[in-house]
Amino acid sequence: MARFLKNKKASIGKAPEELIFIGERKVNEASLKLIDYGSETILEKDLSAIKDALSCIEGHTVTWINIYGIHNTKLINEIGEAFNIHPLTLEDILHTGQRPKMEEYDDYLVFILKIMNFDETMETIKSEQLSLILGRSFLITFQERSSDIFKPVINRIRKNKGRIRERASDYLAYALLDTIIDHYLLVIGKLGDKIEEIESDLISNPSKEILTKIYRYKQEISYLRKSIRPTKNFILQLCKIDTEFFKEETAPFLKDLLDLSTQAREIVDIYGVILTDYLNFYDSVTNNKLNEIMKILTIFSVTFIPLTFIAGIYGTNFEYIPELKYKYSYFIFWSVLILTGIGMLAFFKRKKWL
Amino acid sequence: MARFLKNKKASIGKAPEELIFIGERKVNEASLKLIDYGSETILEKDLSAIKDALSCIEGHTVTWINIYGIHNTKLINEIGEAFNIHPLTLEDILHTGQRPKMEEYDDYLVFILKIMNFDETMETIKSEQLSLILGRSFLITFQERSSDIFKPVINRIRKNKGRIRERASDYLAYALLDTIIDHYLLVIGKLGDKIEEIESDLISNPSKEILTKIYRYKQEISYLRKSIRPTKNFILQLCKIDTEFFKEETAPFLKDLLDLSTQAREIVDIYGVILTDYLNFYDSVTNNKLNEIMKILTIFSVTFIPLTFIAGIYGTNFEYIPELKYKYSYFIFWSVLILTGIGMLAFFKRKKWL
Amino acid sequence: MARFLKNKKASIGKAPEELIFIGERKVNEASLKLIDYGSETILEKDLSAIKDALSCIEGHTVTWINIYGIHNTKLINEIGEAFNIHPLTLEDILHTGQRPKMEEYDDYLVFILKIMNFDETMETIKSEQLSLILGRSFLITFQERSSDIFKPVINRIRKNKGRIRERASDYLAYALLDTIIDHYLLVIGKLGDKIEEIESDLISNPSKEILTKIYRYKQEISYLRKSIRPTKNFILQLCKIDTEFFKEETAPFLKDLLDLSTQAREIVDIYGVILTDYLNFYDSVTNNKLNEIMKILTIFSVTFIPLTFIAGIYGTNFEYIPELKYKYSYFIFWSVLILTGIGMLAFFKRKKWL
Amino acid sequence: MARFLKNKKASIGKAPEELIFIGERKVNEASLKLIDYGSETILEKDLSAIKDALSCIEGHTVTWINIYGIHNTKLINEIGEAFNIHPLTLEDILHTGQRPKMEEYDDYLVFILKIMNFDETMETIKSEQLSLILGRSFLITFQERSSDIFKPVINRIRKNKGRIRERASDYLAYALLDTIIDHYLLVIGKLGDKIEEIESDLISNPSKEILTKIYRYKQEISYLRKSIRPTKNFILQLCKIDTEFFKEETAPFLKDLLDLSTQAREIVDIYGVILTDYLNFYDSVTNNKLNEIMKILTIFSVTFIPLTFIAGIYGTNFEYIPELKYKYSYFIFWSVLILTGIGMLAFFKRKKWL
Amino acid sequence: MARFLKNKKASIGKAPEELIFIGERKVNEASLKLIDYGSETILEKDLSAIKDALSCIEGHTVTWINIYGIHNTKLINEIGEAFNIHPLTLEDILHTGQRPKMEEYDDYLVFILKIMNFDETMETIKSEQLSLILGRSFLITFQERSSDIFKPVINRIRKNKGRIRERASDYLAYALLDTIIDHYLLVIGKLGDKIEEIESDLISNPSKEILTKIYRYKQEISYLRKSIRPTKNFILQLCKIDTEFFKEETAPFLKDLLDLSTQAREIVDIYGVILTDYLNFYDSVTNNKLNEIMKILTIFSVTFIPLTFIAGIYGTNFEYIPELKYKYSYFIFWSVLILTGIGMLAFFKRKKWL
Repeated sequence: MARFLKNKKASIGKAPEELIFIGERKVNEASLKLIDYGSETILEKDLSAIKDALSCIEGHTVTWINIYGIHNTKLINEIGEAFNIHPLTLEDILHTGQRPKMEEYDDYLVFILKIMNFDETMETIKSEQLSLILGRSFLITFQERSSDIFKPVINRIRKNKGRIRERASDYLAYALLDTIIDHYLLVIGKLGDKIEEIESDLISNPSKEILTKIYRYKQEISYLRKSIRPTKNFILQLCKIDTEFFKEETAPFLKDLLDLSTQAREIVDIYGVILTDYLNFYDSVTNNKLNEIMKILTIFSVTFIPLTFIAGIYGTNFEYIPELKYKYSYFIFWSVLILTGIGMLAFFKRKKWL
Repeated sequence: MARFLKNKKASIGKAPEELIFIGERKVNEASLKLIDYGSETILEKDLSAIKDALSCIEGHTVTWINIYGIHNTKLINEIGEAFNIHPLTLEDILHTGQRPKMEEYDDYLVFILKIMNFDETMETIKSEQLSLILGRSFLITFQERSSDIFKPVINRIRKNKGRIRERASDYLAYALLDTIIDHYLLVIGKLGDKIEEIESDLISNPSKEILTKIYRYKQEISYLRKSIRPTKNFILQLCKIDTEFFKEETAPFLKDLLDLSTQAREIVDIYGVILTDYLNFYDSVTNNKLNEIMKILTIFSVTFIPLTFIAGIYGTNFEYIPELKYKYSYFIFWSVLILTGIGMLAFFKRKKWL
Repeated sequence: MARFLKNKKASIGKAPEELIFIGERKVNEASLKLIDYGSETILEKDLSAIKDALSCIEGHTVTWINIYGIHNTKLINEIGEAFNIHPLTLEDILHTGQRPKMEEYDDYLVFILKIMNFDETMETIKSEQLSLILGRSFLITFQERSSDIFKPVINRIRKNKGRIRERASDYLAYALLDTIIDHYLLVIGKLGDKIEEIESDLISNPSKEILTKIYRYKQEISYLRKSIRPTKNFILQLCKIDTEFFKEETAPFLKDLLDLSTQAREIVDIYGVILTDYLNFYDSVTNNKLNEIMKILTIFSVTFIPLTFIAGIYGTNFEYIPELKYKYSYFIFWSVLILTGIGMLAFFKRKKWL
Repeated sequence: MARFLKNKKASIGKAPEELIFIGERKVNEASLKLIDYGSETILEKDLSAIKDALSCIEGHTVTWINIYGIHNTKLINEIGEAFNIHPLTLEDILHTGQRPKMEEYDDYLVFILKIMNFDETMETIKSEQLSLILGRSFLITFQERSSDIFKPVINRIRKNKGRIRERASDYLAYALLDTIIDHYLLVIGKLGDKIEEIESDLISNPSKEILTKIYRYKQEISYLRKSIRPTKNFILQLCKIDTEFFKEETAPFLKDLLDLSTQAREIVDIYGVILTDYLNFYDSVTNNKLNEIMKILTIFSVTFIPLTFIAGIYGTNFEYIPELKYKYSYFIFWSVLILTGIGMLAFFKRKKWL
Repeated sequence: MARFLKNKKASIGKAPEELIFIGERKVNEASLKLIDYGSETILEKDLSAIKDALSCIEGHTVTWINIYGIHNTKLINEIGEAFNIHPLTLEDILHTGQRPKMEEYDDYLVFILKIMNFDETMETIKSEQLSLILGRSFLITFQERSSDIFKPVINRIRKNKGRIRERASDYLAYALLDTIIDHYLLVIGKLGDKIEEIESDLISNPSKEILTKIYRYKQEISYLRKSIRPTKNFILQLCKIDTEFFKEETAPFLKDLLDLSTQAREIVDIYGVILTDYLNFYDSVTNNKLNEIMKILTIFSVTFIPLTFIAGIYGTNFEYIPELKYKYSYFIFWSVLILTGIGMLAFFKRKKWL
C-alpha cells in the first residue's frame, strides 16, 4: 500500500483548516531560497523567514521562492497567510499522496505534480511531490527535499541564456514543468532500457528470475502511469482554459509541453504492452520447453519399454521355454531388440518428433 | 446474488407511492438525533417524533437530523410529508440496493451512497446505504444502523473546530461526504495491504489457498468499484451543475472531493490490475514448477531406462550368451553402464537442463 | 443462430409496405383486450375488432389496448390504419428479431423491447418482443402471447392503488416499462444465483460439467446484454429529449427508470466479469492439479527407478560377480536400497515437494 | 495480405487524375443496363454507350444505370465526364480495396460499400465493391460483375409493388442499401450457423481441425467487421446530415437502415466474443484431457513401479537370500504385492482420483 | 529504448532557443534543392545557401525547398530566420524523436511525420522524420537524408502530369502527404505478407522460431501504430479546421487523405489482432501436441508396465513357484500377456485414445 496510496487515516473527518503533514519526512530543516530576476538584475539569497521575500514581490521582477522540506506546517501556514493561499491548497501541499492536478484560484494557479527518479540499484522509481504556485509576479515551489533537478533552469537564469530573463513568471513555470516532464522521459528511457535488456535472456533462457523482473517492471509502469496520466490531462486542460496567469506568447510552449507529456504517456503504454507480450512469450516458451522435455522422455521411454519387456520375458525361470535352448537364440533376441528399436524410431520420424 | 443485487422481487409492478423496505433489518428500533447549530449556539437532542424537529428548521441555524434504522416505513413516510420529499426519493431511501446517485428536486438535493467497512477477520467489505437530503437550511441523513463514522464531524461541531460552525448546511454535507470518501480510501488501503501481503508468498510458494485469496480479493475489488464509480460520477456532476443548494464558496471543497473520489477510483483500478497480474504470475510460476518437475523426472528416467534395459539383457536365461562367460564381463558391463550414464548426463548438459 | 439473429431471409429486397411476420407463432389466435380508465371510471372488455376501440379513444380517459399474438398481419394492418401508424413501425412490430429501440413519430412514440423470462429447468433465458405505442391518449401494447407480466399494473388500475388512475397514458407507459425492467433485474438475480452457486463446486471439484455450465451462463449473459444495453440507451435518450408524449411531472419517474436500467446493465457486466474469473480460476486449479499429479508420479518413479536398476544389476547371470558370493551381500544390498530411497526423499524434501 | 489490403503499389505518387483499375478483373466485358421509371412508365434497355442514357435523365422519371465490370477505365472516364463526377470519386470506384464510405459533392452523393457473399463450400466470405452515385434524378451503380443481388428490387419496380414507383431516386438508393445490409445479416446468419454447429463437437471431441476452424471463422468475422463497421458509421452520418439528396419523407427509412446496420455490427461482435469463448473452452478442455491422461498414467505407473521393484529384488542372484528358501515365500510374496497394490489404490481413492 | 524513445537527456532544462540536433546523423553534408514551378515555368537548382531561394518566393510560383540532412543546426537556424519560423518549430525539426503532429502558426502550417521503410532482410521497419512547412507560396521539407520517396511527385511536376502544375503549394503539400501515407500502406502490406506467410507454418509445425517471429512482428506493428495513429489524428484535425493555408478546392483531397490514413490505422489494428490470434493458436496447438505426446507415452507405458511386472514375477528365484514346473506354463504366460495387452488396448479404445 505504501506505494499506491499514502496513509489517509490521520486526516479522516478533520477540517481542511487543520494543517497536518502526511508523508515521510525527508529533510531535517526546511529551507527557503529566493531568486529574484529581471532582464537586467538578479538577486539570490537564503531566506530565514517568508516575510523577507515580500518586498521583492512588489517590483516588476520575477520572484521565485523555492521551499525545501514541507513537514513544517507552521512555515506553510505563514506562506499561506503571506500570499493569501486557500486552506485547501495548503492541505494539498502537505499531503504528499496527492494525485497530480492543476487548480485555478483568483490569485494564483496551483500545480501539484511528481518529480520522478529512477533508482538504478533497486530498479525502482522514486517520486517526490512538487507543488508550484504561480501568481501574477511570483512563483513558489515546494519540494520534499533539496534536489538538483532545477539546476539547469537556475543556470539559464544566472547566465542569462535564451530568453528566460526577458520573460515573466509564467515562462519560468513553463521551464520548470518542462524540466520535470523531460525527467519523466528520462526515467521512462532508463526503465525502457532495463525492459529491452531482458528480451534476449527471455528468448534464450526464461527463468523465474526473469518472470519476477517482468512483474516488477510492470508495477513500475503502473506507478509511472498513475502520475503521468493526470499530469498530461491537466496540461491539456491548461492549453484549453483561458487564464490570465499564462500570457498569449507562452501558448506555443504549453502546446510543446502537451506534446511531451502525450509522448510520455504513449511510450509508457507501449512498454506496458511490451511487458504483457513478454509474459505471454514466457508462457509460450515454457510450454514449448515442456513439450521438448516430454518428447525426449517419451522417445526414450517408448523405445526402451518394449525392449525391457522382451528382456524380462527371457529372464523368467519357466522350466520349459523352447527358445532358450537354440544356439542362435541370443543373437535372434538381439536382432528382435534392434529391429523393434528401429521400428520405434521410424514411428517417431513419421510423427515428426525426430 | 446477495452481494451484487438486492432482491427486487417484492417491488415488481408496485406503485412507487407504496413504500416497502427492501434490505436487511440491522437495528431493532429506529432512532432520531437532532443537532442544531449556528456560529454561537448548539443544541443536541434525541427526537421521539419528527415533528419535534420542525421548529428548529425555521431559524437561521443549521439543522441536522440523523436517522438510524430505515426499516420503519411509517417514520420515513412522516419525514417525507414533513419535509415535502418526493415519493421516489422515499422509495430510494428504503431500497438498500440502490446504486449511488445524486438527484436534484425543487426543495432539496438527495445523495444516495454507501458507507464502506472492511471486516478484518472475514477479509470482506461490508457496506451500508446512507441517504442524505440537503435542503436550504437542514440536512437529513438516513443510516441503516447507528455508527461512529460521523463522530469526528460531530466533534468538530461540538468543539467549534475549524470553520464548520460558521458555515451553512452545504458545508456540513461536504464534511459528511468527505468523511465517507476518506473511509473509502481507508478501506482500499486495508484491502491493498492484504493484497500486497500475499505477493511474497505468491513468489515463494504459490498454493491453491493463495489462488482462492486472489479471487476473493478480486470480488472485493469488483464490489468496491461498483460503489465508487457512480459516486465519483455524481460528484463530478455536482461540480458541474449550477445549484442553489451549494454556495459559491463551497465549490473548491467539492473539487477537493472530486479529487479524492477520482483517486479512490484509480487506486481501486490499479489493485484490480495488480490482482490480474498476480493470477498470470501464479499461472506462469505453476507452469515453471511443472517444467522443473518434468525435468527431474525426465533426467532420472532417461538416464536409468537404458541402464535397466542393459541389466535386463544379461538377466535373460539364454543358454548360449557368450558375454556371460568372460571373467571381466561384469566389470565391462559396469563400465558400459557408467559410460552410458555419463553420456546421458552430457546430453542433458548440452540441452542446458543441468 | 436461432438465438442471436432471427431469420431475415424472407424479407430481403421486400418493400417495407409488404407486412410479413418473422418469428415463431406462439399462440393460435390473436386476441385484443381493452382497458379504459380515468380517475373515476374503469372499463374492461375483450375486443373482437379494432374498430370497437376507437370510440373510447375520443374521451379524456386513458385507453390501453393489449394485443396478444402478432402473427396476424391483417389485424396489425387494421390497427396501423386505425391509428395512423407508419408502415416501418408495423414492420418492426412484426419482426420479432428487432433490437430494442425507441422512435418518435408525429402522432406517437414507439418502444420495441424484450420481456425476459428465466426458464429454471433449462437454465436458459427466454425472451419475447413487446411493442408499445404511446399516443396522446392511448397506449397499445403488442405481445407475442398472453402473459401475466402486466397483472400487477392491471391490479393497481382496478383497485385504484397509488396515483395511476389520476395520471395520463404516459404514466401507464412508465409503469409498464418499469415492470419490464424490474423483470430484467429478477432474471439477472436468478441467473446470478445459479452463477454464484457453482463457485464452491469450482473450488472443491472443478469438472468438465462445471466448465460447460460456465460457458452456458456466459452465453446467457451475452444474450441479456444484447437486450439490456440498447434498452438502457433508449431510456437515456428518452430522459434527454423534449417530447410532448411525456409530461413534465413524469420526468422523475423516467430518471428512476434510467437508474434501474443502468443498474441492470452494470450487474450484467459484473456477472460477465465473474464468469471470466471463474474460467481463469478453473484453468489455474486444473494446472495446480496437474502439478500435484506430476509430483506424485515423479516422487514414485524417481525413487523406485534407481532401486529397480540396482536389483536388475544383481539379477544378471554373469558367471563372475564377486558381490553375489559374500554372505552379507543381500543385507548390504538392502541397506544400499534403503539409503538410496532415503536420499531421494531427502532430495524431494529440499525441493519442498514433500 | 490479399484479403485485408489491396495492392496500393501501383498508385504511389500517381496523380488522382490518372485513372488506374486496382483489383481483380471479374468479367470480360463491362456492360451497362438502364432502368428508367416513373409511377406510370417503365423502360429497360441495354446501353452500348453512356451517352444513350443522357436523354432519359432530363425527364421526371428515376433513371438507374447499372454498370457491371469496372476494369474499363475508359468507360468510367466517359461516365465521369457525362455526369460531372469528381476525379477522386472515379478513383475510388476503380480501386476495389476502398473502405466503405459516403461522400457528398455538389451534384451527387457517392456511396462505396461491399456486397458480401458466403461461399458455402469454402466457408469463406467473398466481397465485391459496389459504388453508388445518387444524383438528383438519377442513380448509377457500379458492380465488379453481373449479380442477382438487386433482382428483388428490380422486380418490385417491374411489378409496381409497394410504393417504389411513386417515389424518387433517393428511395431507390435506400432500397438498394437495404438489400445490401439485409445480405450482410444473411451472411452473418450463415456464418453464425457454422459457428454454432461446431459447439457440440467442441464439447465432445476437441480436435486440431476444430481449432483451425475456429481461427478461420475468427478471420471471417474480422473481415466482416472491417466492412460493416464503416458502413454503419456512414449510415449514422447520413441520418444526421441535412442533405438535399434525401427527402424528408425518406428519413424514417434511413433510421431503419441504421437499426439494421447497428444490429449487424452487434451480432458480428457477439460472434467474435463467442469464438473467443470457444478458444478458451478448447484450451480448458484440452487441459482437462491432459489431466485425465496423466491421472491414468500415474495410477498405473505408481501402482506397478513398487510391485516390479519387489519382483526385481527376488530376481537377484545373491547366494544367500533367506526368503527364497521358505516353502510359502512365493505366496507371501504375492500377498505383499496384492496388499501394496491395494494400498496404492486406497491412496488414490483418498486423493479422489478414482 | 532506441526504437520507442529517442534520447532526451541532452535537452533537459535547456532553453528551446538553443538548437541541438537529437538523433543519428545519416548524411555527411546537408544539401538544399529548390524546385520552383508555375503552370508554365519550372526551375530546378541546387542551393548553396538559403538566401538564394528568397527571390523565388516573391513570385506567383510554387517554391519547394527540399533539405536533406538536418544535423546542421546553423543551416536550420538560417532557414528559421529567413522564413520567420518559431524556435519551437525549429526545435521539433531537429529532434528526430518527435511524435507526428500538425501545428498552425501565423505564417505557416508545420507537419512533422515519419517516412516508413520496410527493410526486407532484417524484417524491421525503419523510419525517418520528415518535417514539412507550408507557407502561403512556399513549401519547405526537411528530410534526414536524401531519398527517392518524392521522385514520382517531382516527375509529375517535371512532366506536367495531372493538375499539379496548375495548383498552389497546398496541393503540393497534399501530394507529398499522400505519397507518404501510400508508403505506409505499402509497408503495412509488406509486413502483412510476412505475417500471413507464417500462418501455414504455424498450423503444420509450430516452433520457437515462429514464436519469436510473431513477437518481432508484434513490435513492428506497435512501432507502426505509434506513428500512424497521431498522423491519422492530425489529418482529421486538418479536415476540420478552417485554415487559409489549404484552399477550398483542396478539401476533397484532404478527405481522401483521411480515408487513406484511417484505412492504414484499421489494417494495422487488424494485423495486431491477427498476431494475437496466432499466439493463442500457437499455445493451443502446443497444448494439443503435448496431449498427443502424452497419449502415446501413456498408451505404451500403461500397456507394457503390467506385462513387464508379470515377467518380473516369474523371474524371481523362489525355490517353490508351482507355475514354473508345468510344461505349458510358458505358453499360458504368453497368453496372459497377450490378453492383458489386448485388454489395455480395448480400454484405450473405449477412452477414444486410439
